[in-house]
Amino acid sequence: MGPALLHPTHSTQIFRRCKGLPSSRLYYIRHYATQPESAAVQRKKVWASADVAVQDVKSGDIVLSGGFGLCGTPETLLTALSRRHDVHSLTAVSNNAGSSDLGLVKLMKSGQLDKLIISYLGGNKYLERMYLDGKMSLELVPQGTLVERMRAHGAGIPAFFTPTGASTTVETGGIPIRFKAGGFKEGILIPGNKKEYREFNGKRYIMEPAIAGDVAFIHAWKADEAGNLMFRHVANNYNNAMARNAQLVIAEAEEIVPIGSLPPNAIHVPGIFVDRVVQATEPKGFDIITTAPPPGTTGGSSPEELLEKSTRRRIAKRAAQELRDGFYVNLGVGIPTLVTEYLRPGVKIWLQSENGILGMGPFPTEDQVDPDITNAGKETVTLLPGASIFDSTDSFGMIRGGHMDVAILGAMQVSQAGDIANFMIPGKLVKGIGGAMDLVSNPDKTKVIVAMEHCAKDGGPKIMQDCSLPLTGARAVSQIITELAVFNVDRSGGILTLMEVAKGVTVEEVQAKTACDFKVSDNLGQM
Amino acid sequence: MGPALLHPTHSTQIFRRCKGLPSSRLYYIRHYATQPESAAVQRKKVWASADVAVQDVKSGDIVLSGGFGLCGTPETLLTALSRRHDVHSLTAVSNNAGSSDLGLVKLMKSGQLDKLIISYLGGNKYLERMYLDGKMSLELVPQGTLVERMRAHGAGIPAFFTPTGASTTVETGGIPIRFKAGGFKEGILIPGNKKEYREFNGKRYIMEPAIAGDVAFIHAWKADEAGNLMFRHVANNYNNAMARNAQLVIAEAEEIVPIGSLPPNAIHVPGIFVDRVVQATEPKGFDIITTAPPPGTTGGSSPEELLEKSTRRRIAKRAAQELRDGFYVNLGVGIPTLVTEYLRPGVKIWLQSENGILGMGPFPTEDQVDPDITNAGKETVTLLPGASIFDSTDSFGMIRGGHMDVAILGAMQVSQAGDIANFMIPGKLVKGIGGAMDLVSNPDKTKVIVAMEHCAKDGGPKIMQDCSLPLTGARAVSQIITELAVFNVDRSGGILTLMEVAKGVTVEEVQAKTACDFKVSDNLGQM
Repeated sequence: MGPALLHPTHSTQIFRRCKGLPSSRLYYIRHYATQPESAAVQRKKVWASADVAVQDVKSGDIVLSGGFGLCGTPETLLTALSRRHDVHSLTAVSNNAGSSDLGLVKLMKSGQLDKLIISYLGGNKYLERMYLDGKMSLELVPQGTLVERMRAHGAGIPAFFTPTGASTTVETGGIPIRFKAGGFKEGILIPGNKKEYREFNGKRYIMEPAIAGDVAFIHAWKADEAGNLMFRHVANNYNNAMARNAQLVIAEAEEIVPIGSLPPNAIHVPGIFVDRVVQATEPKGFDIITTAPPPGTTGGSSPEELLEKSTRRRIAKRAAQELRDGFYVNLGVGIPTLVTEYLRPGVKIWLQSENGILGMGPFPTEDQVDPDITNAGKETVTLLPGASIFDSTDSFGMIRGGHMDVAILGAMQVSQAGDIANFMIPGKLVKGIGGAMDLVSNPDKTKVIVAMEHCAKDGGPKIMQDCSLPLTGARAVSQIITELAVFNVDRSGGILTLMEVAKGVTVEEVQAKTACDFKVSDNLGQM
Repeated sequence: MGPALLHPTHSTQIFRRCKGLPSSRLYYIRHYATQPESAAVQRKKVWASADVAVQDVKSGDIVLSGGFGLCGTPETLLTALSRRHDVHSLTAVSNNAGSSDLGLVKLMKSGQLDKLIISYLGGNKYLERMYLDGKMSLELVPQGTLVERMRAHGAGIPAFFTPTGASTTVETGGIPIRFKAGGFKEGILIPGNKKEYREFNGKRYIMEPAIAGDVAFIHAWKADEAGNLMFRHVANNYNNAMARNAQLVIAEAEEIVPIGSLPPNAIHVPGIFVDRVVQATEPKGFDIITTAPPPGTTGGSSPEELLEKSTRRRIAKRAAQELRDGFYVNLGVGIPTLVTEYLRPGVKIWLQSENGILGMGPFPTEDQVDPDITNAGKETVTLLPGASIFDSTDSFGMIRGGHMDVAILGAMQVSQAGDIANFMIPGKLVKGIGGAMDLVSNPDKTKVIVAMEHCAKDGGPKIMQDCSLPLTGARAVSQIITELAVFNVDRSGGILTLMEVAKGVTVEEVQAKTACDFKVSDNLGQM
């Protein structure tokens, strides 16, 4: 661009045909300069090291930490912060709390954390003990609500209404945040936060407040010197929303490139949100490496052979009959994961993984293993042709908005009105909420099927008039499939109808093992 | 993948070192099949033509139409719908209402539209007449609120709180939606929607409801046969949020490619949201082609020479002194657009354009003109190195969230408390709200500077105790720059302080031309 651009001629407005454009219209041509020189800002955001970049983190700060499991975790920044022995009483916000010695576990063991706001605790024994001993506060938040609360603050929204968690302990504030010194036997020091509720179009929603971070730690694949970020595959997850939220956003990047190197359309986080960029130096962690047998391997029994000895597989096979070609489906842990092995001939489905995949494929062979392609169970997976990757905000928008066709979930209890309980047993430690409450939050649009064994391990009923365990969602389930029977649920009427019984099973047997009344279909079928 | 995948061996859990991975940790290796065959769904979403694809649109439907101005407008689908003479009484939701014979003007002239929900009317004379004659309903919505309301429904959120429009006619419902038959002189048939307000942390917010579309018309660059979409440059704008919203989503694409052709990380809209894909056949439209003079052209006076005869340029030059190197800045129309010509030496800024650009460059040369690279004034522009592109949801998240450093805006009136009025004069037609209310919605984080001539054309004051015109925002402006003076605004105290006067201008002259009291700084400077 020459100095001609310094000489704008605003008044030069020419109406004429422009070459290369349809000649049937007249275009408005105006000569005008937007900016005297067409050069970008040269000020760089790259800092010498993570240790220097974290120097402004203060005691008492709310620190957002990206990643899902160990995928996309800002390990380099967390390590640097764990060396800041002067910094304590931090609140960390993350999906998980790390595992073994990685992720947020570093800040726990260094004694710097006072509170965690997370969606899923999982098998983090260290955190479990600290929480039960009253030494750490823990706020459990449904996964979609957690990321949406962070997205909201970044977008200037102080609060929003969501169906997720309505009519559950999330609404009532039933999960304690902190026990008294001396541990849970001494009682509750800080109870859960009670939520305001409101009906819109006859449906119950709760109001959730934004979460504002003081600092965000982000793990990026590529960053340019202006702070523009790109994520690699599902390492996008929480990093995207967190990078838009905090007062001070620090990104560690696997690769730092000059300004102008990243394609404008492929940038996941515009540089405006990012304050500091450092080189990532810690290796990427894996939670669970799951692999398919190498090609050519033969082994084991076929899925059909396995049916004989597996009740769980018979349930999965019946559930698979509900899926039609092209369906978008989310499968919960346990029995639901077996469903894909029994799809009817010609039926192929798009599997969603709530950490940000649509079109999830099978486990990788050993040489395909990629730490940035993992599923919601934190296992390594692959992507099918046509797959797409997105961040956690989008993933839960997709789920809560009812865009999935079907969610198949396990359950501890289901009521005759379709209430489902599958996330906690009082008196035992909550492992977390994860995505379960979100997956059942829009049952008018996403059919929720429960696939579970008919009775509990002690033989007691799991299908009952009212759930005795805390609910994951109210009036959410449309169909219940067990090894004995298939029920349809009239969610508004609160009535079950027995549609099918398994071969050799009588209605009387189903009645004996079910703790509520139900109608029997006039066309009772056999599973 | 061979049939081995059909033979899962869940129990095979091996703890061993995995080749190519750090040897210091043990990994959990599990052989497990997620899906019997690693093939994607083959069901295709491609329809033969736009005419066939729009066959399920019904009278009375709410139709979301993507695009900003004519950039990214689904012209092929709108043309097809305009041929459906049986379909009428539609509500269209869009940023603009089209121009000349393009965009939504097609459905207006065909008599199919009953209501428009838009952000900006602009110079659409046809719509203006229909509205004033009481023949069409018009709901004007701030640009950021409009896209967020659509994003909300798509994400399962029925309502949210926003600062945009609080304490304005948006809150009070002061802009009529429809006049009585016979026109505006007969009075109001449907008043504007009043909004509920609430304070969070001492700041006023209003509750905005989600907008649910029956049908969305989307213009994509590339679509695969599974419905995954990519947008080209700023044609992303509203298309992204709309594609996630409606019951029936139809995308026209410039190019339709086989499943597996699009990179999973670069997909803007996952296929789950898209129901039908058709080939786009209508040419892309331009609103305004603005070009820079060809390289080597010399012409006109320099910006410094122009200062002598231009009051507006002197105001712009003073406003430019407020910008520091690396600032992220949004410039309103009029005087603010001149600011970039007077940046101090060494200062370069990132210009934001609210239709989805950060790092906007100067006007293109004639051979650089691209219909998919336009600014919020609908003019063709360029991208600087380091630029990023994003959709309207992200753009207004960025604005409302207070991530911009400075917004420089023109105004019709400013009050001593920093209230700003710059979008409507009662009795004259509202051209729309556009992004103005969003740009002043977070003044604690984004400094709002008003750059305007000190008095109105009739010589009357524009700086006053209370604005007489409807507000764009309350207590929003931190600084006022005119050709006579610079004021700082104490927004909480509601008091102006005169900081500088222009050469040859006395405090008495400023007092005579200002309709409110103000303090005079002890260190009164010269502009």
